[in-house]
Amino acid sequence: MKSRAKAKTKARRGLGRGVALVGAGMSKFGSFPEKAGRDLFFEAFQELRASVDKGLDPEAIEALYLGNYSSDLFEGQGHTAPIIADWLGLTPRSATRIEDACASSGVALRQGVIAIASGLYDVVLVGGVEKMTALPTERVTDVLATGGDALFEIPAGFTFPGFYAAMATAYIHRYGAPLEALMRVGIKNHEHGALNEKAQFNLTIRQIMENKLAKAKAQGRPLPSWADELEFLRDDSANPVIAWPLRLFDCSPISDGAAALLLVAEERAKEFTDEPVYIIGSGQASDGALHSRSELTSIRAAKLAAQEAYAMAGVGPQEIKLAEVHDCFTIAEIIATEDLGFFPPGEGWKAAMEGLTSLRGPKPINPSGGLKAKGHPVGASGAAQVVELWKQLRGQAGPRQVRGEPDLGLAHNVGGTGQTCVVHIFRRG
Amino acid sequence: MKSRAKAKTKARRGLGRGVALVGAGMSKFGSFPEKAGRDLFFEAFQELRASVDKGLDPEAIEALYLGNYSSDLFEGQGHTAPIIADWLGLTPRSATRIEDACASSGVALRQGVIAIASGLYDVVLVGGVEKMTALPTERVTDVLATGGDALFEIPAGFTFPGFYAAMATAYIHRYGAPLEALMRVGIKNHEHGALNEKAQFNLTIRQIMENKLAKAKAQGRPLPSWADELEFLRDDSANPVIAWPLRLFDCSPISDGAAALLLVAEERAKEFTDEPVYIIGSGQASDGALHSRSELTSIRAAKLAAQEAYAMAGVGPQEIKLAEVHDCFTIAEIIATEDLGFFPPGEGWKAAMEGLTSLRGPKPINPSGGLKAKGHPVGASGAAQVVELWKQLRGQAGPRQVRGEPDLGLAHNVGGTGQTCVVHIFRRG
Repeated sequence: MKSRAKAKTKARRGLGRGVALVGAGMSKFGSFPEKAGRDLFFEAFQELRASVDKGLDPEAIEALYLGNYSSDLFEGQGHTAPIIADWLGLTPRSATRIEDACASSGVALRQGVIAIASGLYDVVLVGGVEKMTALPTERVTDVLATGGDALFEIPAGFTFPGFYAAMATAYIHRYGAPLEALMRVGIKNHEHGALNEKAQFNLTIRQIMENKLAKAKAQGRPLPSWADELEFLRDDSANPVIAWPLRLFDCSPISDGAAALLLVAEERAKEFTDEPVYIIGSGQASDGALHSRSELTSIRAAKLAAQEAYAMAGVGPQEIKLAEVHDCFTIAEIIATEDLGFFPPGEGWKAAMEGLTSLRGPKPINPSGGLKAKGHPVGASGAAQVVELWKQLRGQAGPRQVRGEPDLGLAHNVGGTGQTCVVHIFRRG
Repeated sequence: MKSRAKAKTKARRGLGRGVALVGAGMSKFGSFPEKAGRDLFFEAFQELRASVDKGLDPEAIEALYLGNYSSDLFEGQGHTAPIIADWLGLTPRSATRIEDACASSGVALRQGVIAIASGLYDVVLVGGVEKMTALPTERVTDVLATGGDALFEIPAGFTFPGFYAAMATAYIHRYGAPLEALMRVGIKNHEHGALNEKAQFNLTIRQIMENKLAKAKAQGRPLPSWADELEFLRDDSANPVIAWPLRLFDCSPISDGAAALLLVAEERAKEFTDEPVYIIGSGQASDGALHSRSELTSIRAAKLAAQEAYAMAGVGPQEIKLAEVHDCFTIAEIIATEDLGFFPPGEGWKAAMEGLTSLRGPKPINPSGGLKAKGHPVGASGAAQVVELWKQLRGQAGPRQVRGEPDLGLAHNVGGTGQTCVVHIFRRG
């Protein structure tokens, strides 16, 4: 069988034809009791339409690929893709839901790229949506746990904070990382999120701390003695342990939100904008559930997906100017920066401590605020990462713009504990 | 915007490169309390492996596209695609779940075709699975109802028998079809299913009737006086009304099952078999939920999907030698034979009455037994239709082989009440 070698060669050569990103939009992320999933996606689509420099007639859209983890369990709504297509006025266009847990819309993006490369479509809408807050928190945790293995892991009592706590514990044990490294990731991502009006938490952790102090003072309660954010984050009452060593501020929130991207065949990009962003690399890989892995301090599917994407793009990790990575928990960001080759194994935590990954550092990670601060409506997160890269690569990210006119960005989107990982690389046109 | 005209031209020209089907397999359909979804898919995969004439090294498989409606709700298992890939030993290949309700695996097939056409992969496994019988029947009905519109239709009390009963009532009213036409579809499909050892019901309705008579006799109960199947089907106690005019034997059953297909780039087909089946046409369209349609006696998405598939294949409905159509209810088969252009609008019921669609008639429909008799594990049904076409086009369908060495077959797979329809056309190599 020669197929593997052949496929590798082909991936290096790239897809049948090039694909450009010519529009992107997202809803505000947060908790919106009055909005259904379809309303959130409509909000994202409206921002997308406004983002297309030369305008978009929705009639031009030939297909929808929609990432969604479980509208079934969250909203009691199956068959979500055509429902949303119809809500947007896209009927009778083909509408397909893609599900790979929290990587659903990263994988939907990949399907859109593939569909255009195949020659079937020229103009494809991709995106993702999740409406999570209609359920009580403990029920949301149960729904998310179905992303583990329902035969082997869930009956053992694992939930997602537990999975990532196991990874964090293994990482700390192996590399001697201090808990402060995790906290630094949260502090940084909240600092970025404070600059993002779409973020669920657009407050720094210092601001959150000061708000709590002001509230205690106004209520005449005794003032906690937090000298700085680190003391605040070490306080069990302010930042309770969820699954040791992960505390509340190590976890991304439960969110409602949607994000949408407009993809077109490369040769038609200029009909939509003079400043397209090209999708030059795409990689996807799978893995068994966490209990079957040989190591916990790295996600193999992420390394393989990155390898495929770098090979297709013909660039390496050092050339990437900024990245949106899947920080569902703070430990996940540290591991991601190693899996993507930004830092050697065991060095990611040092980079976080030294501020190398902050907006003004040499390798900005999650300028949007990441899943931690921007929010994590699971099926939308992969597409929302790309909305940020679209803005950053076009110099439209406002107060959180990465300096130096970045030309290459990367998105890293993980499903479950790494049963799926999908990586895309983008180049300013 | 020139995109629509362009896309049409392209569809007529076909995809970037050709795709061949070189293997196919399915599990037995039925109720299997001891098997999880992954076990069912493994069973289908084992039959697929045995079907590849020159053998299949699973290492050659580069990606999995898995159709599944709701392992979330049926099994409490999200993120099903990589779980199943791992169960088959395909880790770390990319694994993607496709969901479009009961059209999930027809759409997964389309994604596999597109992925090969794009140049990214040469060898792709597609298929579908559903494990439905772990839940009690009334809960299954609720889960299926989420394929309607959760904001507008479900709160109004609609379930799927109700949706299709509305379509049946409209059809009868408009065209004056007798209830016997519906019964004839069920009788025919059970006759076909009786010849299919994989079918959930491999008994004719006459055999079922005779079994009931024998049982009544053995128990010393008074014998019902059914002269033939039609009398049996008109008896409220033997064949109760589910949602008028649909009775029990008008409805496909609740099933567990899986089906798998091996797709390869056309130029590599001969590595796997000297008798490939080529996928020469693919079409997909969407629609709004039933309450928003302008008519109920036809499914617009089916007509559009068929139009796209015929244009790509360069053939018309009269050239199709046999078809597997989505008979989730008997009325759905009658409407399908009109939407696909086999019979004019309002004439499908006459064709059913006259036996034109039986195995030995001029236009055999559902030689496998269809969803009605073979069973309807919803996410697997679209792929299972193609398993039947694979066998029929290669002359391997045994006692239910369509005569005359058929060269062209069609699969018609519907999601919901037609919010999705996907049509594929196959040619013997």
